Amino acid sequence: MLNQFYPFYKPKLNIMMLFTRRFFVLSIALLLAVTASVPVNAQQTLNDVKKDRGLTDNDVLAAAKTFMPRGGRDEYFGFVGTGNSGTMIVYGLPSMRIYKYVGVFSPEPWQGYGYDDESSLLLKKASLDDKIDWYGDMRYPGFSETNGNYDGKHLFYSDGANSRIAMLDLEDFETKQVLSHPLFLSAFPGVAVTPNTDWVIQTSQFPATWDAQSSDLKSGITFWNFHKVEKTTKTGHAGRILKEKSITLELPPFTLGYSDAGKFGSDGYMVGLASKDGKNYVYLVDYNKVVGMKTKSVSNFAVVPFANANKDGVVAMIQLPAKANYVKVTPKGKYFITVGDETTVFDFAKAIKALTDKSFNGKVDGIPTIDAAAVKHGSIKLGNGVTDIAFEYRPNIAYASAFNDKKVVRWNYETLKKEGELKLDFKPGQLMVPQGMSASPHSNYLTVVDKEGLYKNFVSVGPIRPSFQHLIDISGDKMSDLYTMSLPQCNMYGSVAVLRTTIKPIIRYPTGTNSRTGEISPFKTVAGKEKIERKGNRVHVFGTLIRSHITPEIVEVNQGDIVTFHLTNLELAEDETHGFTIDTYGKHGSFEPGKTASLTFTADREGAFPYYCTEFCSALHLEMEGILLVKPKNWKGSKGGEITLTKKELAEYKKNYEDKLKVIAQTQDVINGVVKWLKENHYENYPYVKALVQDAVAQLNKAATPKANYEKFAKEGKWKDAFLWAEQYFQYQVKAADAGLRAKKLLTEKLGSK
Amino acid sequence: MLNQFYPFYKPKLNIMMLFTRRFFVLSIALLLAVTASVPVNAQQTLNDVKKDRGLTDNDVLAAAKTFMPRGGRDEYFGFVGTGNSGTMIVYGLPSMRIYKYVGVFSPEPWQGYGYDDESSLLLKKASLDDKIDWYGDMRYPGFSETNGNYDGKHLFYSDGANSRIAMLDLEDFETKQVLSHPLFLSAFPGVAVTPNTDWVIQTSQFPATWDAQSSDLKSGITFWNFHKVEKTTKTGHAGRILKEKSITLELPPFTLGYSDAGKFGSDGYMVGLASKDGKNYVYLVDYNKVVGMKTKSVSNFAVVPFANANKDGVVAMIQLPAKANYVKVTPKGKYFITVGDETTVFDFAKAIKALTDKSFNGKVDGIPTIDAAAVKHGSIKLGNGVTDIAFEYRPNIAYASAFNDKKVVRWNYETLKKEGELKLDFKPGQLMVPQGMSASPHSNYLTVVDKEGLYKNFVSVGPIRPSFQHLIDISGDKMSDLYTMSLPQCNMYGSVAVLRTTIKPIIRYPTGTNSRTGEISPFKTVAGKEKIERKGNRVHVFGTLIRSHITPEIVEVNQGDIVTFHLTNLELAEDETHGFTIDTYGKHGSFEPGKTASLTFTADREGAFPYYCTEFCSALHLEMEGILLVKPKNWKGSKGGEITLTKKELAEYKKNYEDKLKVIAQTQDVINGVVKWLKENHYENYPYVKALVQDAVAQLNKAATPKANYEKFAKEGKWKDAFLWAEQYFQYQVKAADAGLRAKKLLTEKLGSK
Repeated sequence: MLNQFYPFYKPKLNIMMLFTRRFFVLSIALLLAVTASVPVNAQQTLNDVKKDRGLTDNDVLAAAKTFMPRGGRDEYFGFVGTGNSGTMIVYGLPSMRIYKYVGVFSPEPWQGYGYDDESSLLLKKASLDDKIDWYGDMRYPGFSETNGNYDGKHLFYSDGANSRIAMLDLEDFETKQVLSHPLFLSAFPGVAVTPNTDWVIQTSQFPATWDAQSSDLKSGITFWNFHKVEKTTKTGHAGRILKEKSITLELPPFTLGYSDAGKFGSDGYMVGLASKDGKNYVYLVDYNKVVGMKTKSVSNFAVVPFANANKDGVVAMIQLPAKANYVKVTPKGKYFITVGDETTVFDFAKAIKALTDKSFNGKVDGIPTIDAAAVKHGSIKLGNGVTDIAFEYRPNIAYASAFNDKKVVRWNYETLKKEGELKLDFKPGQLMVPQGMSASPHSNYLTVVDKEGLYKNFVSVGPIRPSFQHLIDISGDKMSDLYTMSLPQCNMYGSVAVLRTTIKPIIRYPTGTNSRTGEISPFKTVAGKEKIERKGNRVHVFGTLIRSHITPEIVEVNQGDIVTFHLTNLELAEDETHGFTIDTYGKHGSFEPGKTASLTFTADREGAFPYYCTEFCSALHLEMEGILLVKPKNWKGSKGGEITLTKKELAEYKKNYEDKLKVIAQTQDVINGVVKWLKENHYENYPYVKALVQDAVAQLNKAATPKANYEKFAKEGKWKDAFLWAEQYFQYQVKAADAGLRAKKLLTEKLGSK
Repeated sequence: MLNQFYPFYKPKLNIMMLFTRRFFVLSIALLLAVTASVPVNAQQTLNDVKKDRGLTDNDVLAAAKTFMPRGGRDEYFGFVGTGNSGTMIVYGLPSMRIYKYVGVFSPEPWQGYGYDDESSLLLKKASLDDKIDWYGDMRYPGFSETNGNYDGKHLFYSDGANSRIAMLDLEDFETKQVLSHPLFLSAFPGVAVTPNTDWVIQTSQFPATWDAQSSDLKSGITFWNFHKVEKTTKTGHAGRILKEKSITLELPPFTLGYSDAGKFGSDGYMVGLASKDGKNYVYLVDYNKVVGMKTKSVSNFAVVPFANANKDGVVAMIQLPAKANYVKVTPKGKYFITVGDETTVFDFAKAIKALTDKSFNGKVDGIPTIDAAAVKHGSIKLGNGVTDIAFEYRPNIAYASAFNDKKVVRWNYETLKKEGELKLDFKPGQLMVPQGMSASPHSNYLTVVDKEGLYKNFVSVGPIRPSFQHLIDISGDKMSDLYTMSLPQCNMYGSVAVLRTTIKPIIRYPTGTNSRTGEISPFKTVAGKEKIERKGNRVHVFGTLIRSHITPEIVEVNQGDIVTFHLTNLELAEDETHGFTIDTYGKHGSFEPGKTASLTFTADREGAFPYYCTEFCSALHLEMEGILLVKPKNWKGSKGGEITLTKKELAEYKKNYEDKLKVIAQTQDVINGVVKWLKENHYENYPYVKALVQDAVAQLNKAATPKANYEKFAKEGKWKDAFLWAEQYFQYQVKAADAGLRAKKLLTEKLGSK
């Protein structure tokens, strides 16, 4: 137990100590730095380097094709579901650099996802027991589409481990929804998206009971209704999965696999893989009909009973000669292709006609079957152990990976002929062409999953190894293997890629945004309105974050209080995220510019707990800290005591104080000069510059109290107090100058570019 | 509630359905694939690519210097603490590819770190309340040293957010220890390591109370005793931090910063940064003396009280003219250098002499002070906003980053002269030269942290952005900027790098290893010894994982049972990790070859829950699954009922059965051929080949029961049962063939390389 001389109730001086225990490395002179250009000094020739590093001409060519010079921009954004990490990887093609991990089904501390109240609520609501599930199994991303093309707005993932579905908004690259499936105990870890994102399709995987409702094993296909918002708002694309409008089609117990949606002529239909008793099928569903059918409610979820659906002939099965790994719909929706050693191209129109005409040749578990021969366009043996196919821009051209043959085959699914191949020194797995699963595939690159990359190209990093993916150049007649990327913390299966420029990310949120809902948070706090509210043992702290202050800087609570920090990042600038951590209290959040989020905890341990910014935000980043004081139970207060200074110490503080006043005067000159220049150049006409000036003024406004204090203490001859308050004044002043100078720099650039 | 016709208590056939609902894509023919070489087909010339992509000659040179051709190996391993992600990044230089994220202070689902019982226990023991802390703040890694050189064995991290210390073993790249600091409420997020790793030094950061022991604000320096094991064992380097032999030196309340340990002539001393009341210091500690002093026990931790330490003159302060960011000891231990706009080189011998002779010029908060002028070698102004320095191989040469000047300066700390500079187009932060903080720095590369990389070289990925790091070529007289890497999920501060070949990672654990303790787990299970034990409501499952089976494949428990799966990965091969997830039960683990780990949970929800392997492990990966049956409370059993087949169905199953027998015979021919070849070539002399043959035999041994069953059912005319059991027999047979063929391939390679 802390005794009654609770340290922070000693004289005020001790609190000041907490404030000023640091000294600024930054001086005004340093802030006036100049920009210089970058000469690159080549000392070795290319031939020297080739010789030194044992590179061939082809290696140099591959290096040149994938190297990203400073200022360059990758052509595509790639997105990968990491499998059991429950996060999404964002990478660039062709540089194959990883830009981001985004928490989806698992919390992610760097972004505070699953740490602040808002995102914790999102994840808890998607669990079966109001607890956060700390992992997921997500393999095949689905992209939102408009007229069959990736529109760069949303990504969807299915969690195979915990039967959830997630929606991400690419305006801020954050997860906006995670929903628990009310029926499936086992979900396939991938989704299909319909051409205008009306429905996001998730299927069960292994047959299972539907929780607490029936003793029978079942399968099912869920059509999640997606409410798409055409006009992008400031707070995100704002689309949402609407559970109450979603529908599940009940099926007899099959193991279900990969599925895809029709397009254009086949719009309104979906296909998917199924297996049972050692037999393999591709199924066809008229989902436009399904979603209009009468439903019954199971676990509060709309279900179309199998018997009803079957009566209306909305589903049929086509038996396959062997197991298929994937079924994929061609870019224009004409065919669907089942992928395996015998790759079969089915004519989508013929299959639809057979379903519509009820041209069935039998039944499996009650589901009518269509004769494969009657609806297929043709078959082709593309190699041994064919794993996957991918489509590209050139008409009817696709790629296939032949795992056991160690090659990628280029082929034509109209003529059913091979058109080329690339031999590899690894066994190729899943394939991806940028935009390949949309109506508009591109033709530059093919990525190939390599589960054995480590043997050939990577060093050993212990018993557990990352996944690997190759970049293949498919732009010319001949293909070439360019680059091997390592994907840590990841089981690599599928990925999708879209032209980078299709995605238009925001830089900041409107001030006070709850980034999960896109709405303005009721806890939004603006500068000057920071406060601490208490009702009984419930304490709400309404605070702000801006370079380089956390306000309030001291929060006092009683042991046992339930405390919430509601923090708003007031920054108007780019990339000015502040992190927030309370030492040893296990509370942590990430606050991007404009975001408001809350951290709730019980203050069950007494003591003085520093809190601080965890993201480097400026040269003054280390100044962003404060103290949470948790007073012991039954604490009665302490008398404290004055600290007596020696004469020598007092003289030293007097000198420090006077020196500080000189520095303050010099700094003020700089500020005055900057203010004059900004006014002359009409800073108020440039929103971002104006925002920085507002930041600067906000800092200066805070300086009034310290100034009154240092003048008062100086008058009383209390030189240490006077010095410490002058130091505090200087802090605000330097921060104002810092913001002002950045405003000047930005305005200079803007004027120069006119 | 599930009704009494609980599905899995229906006829046995239904259980078989669960087994065989999939069909093998793999046939014996596919297993006999041939290896081919890789031609790379260049179609564009280098000049075409340069033109297309707007590359300069220097870009191509940089590309060639960093591109890693297939089969190439990076020269160095780099290690980064991610800040508030609580994980470590492992990357390669010069390719700057990320190989791994390792969970340290935060759980990490891909590795199961913080998910299985063993690693959860490790993390819980390091928390204040037996709960897992789900984040950390780790910035500056410390490498284990032998005679001042990085020995590639261990890494150490301090958690600034939750006051913990962690030790990783680089034999398997895993975290072996996380200890909560018993005194500090605020720890500096970095450590210093002494030249033979006798002590790992962690300091407090902000002054705070020492939990529940005193009302006074304090600082402290903790010397964690490290028990180093010279001989590397099969189960890891086996070194451990010994808390009971560790000691904390109590200090008056200063804010403490970066610290470093002396070497050679300065061995036994450490230096660190301190600040208080706006004044800045570097402190010097004679730690050899400190660790021998009498201690008192505070919170069960040995503390040297400040008064005693001070009496013995083990610590002194040297005041600095301004705040320093770092203090670093030169490679041979001659100087320590405080880094800031005025960078000061102190003569370590003179400082030690001043401490020993008590040549003090005053006191600060009771700590004696040494006159800076008397012990300094000299000062140099290296630029504006100097952030960090790094040492290299060439005598007395160091680098400094001047943040505001946007340049890196090469300088000589003996002559105190600048020797060159590289202008940059970004503000450089922290620096690192491979092995730069050891006695043997290298001279090829310098890495530079870039907090503004996004503006110049990266695309926007929403409001929160990754950290960036540049690779600079310092090998020649002129420096050049080669590459920008993105570090996702990371606040980039410090990193360390070591020659790749210094680290010798293991490929697998001895069978049954608890990877956290390095000991053989009491729950180790070998093939054939799998079992389920029950005492009241406590169920222990002793299972095994090996391609492509989880044994047991069905586990039945009662609702409310407390269940533990103890699983052992029996694989002897490389990179054969199996993941394990129980659908919607929130239990997940990663099982590297040889590892035994346990997953404990309460079976509180009734139903049938699939479990499966989450790591791609072979073409038969999807076969690795089973079912957890949780019987409802008060369940009395069901009678079930036979399923009657039509005549046509029966005939179809008879044909399937007969076809399957043919395939089984063909497969057996292949197996016999392989076995003959292996014997002729004396496979038993090659341990890894022998291990694969053992895997194959283990699979075949499992096939006896299915064989007896299919023969019995065929005799009875129960063709569906006969077919399903034949299918099951074939599964084991194919897996045996798979392992056998891999053995043959490996032996072929081994014979060829002789």
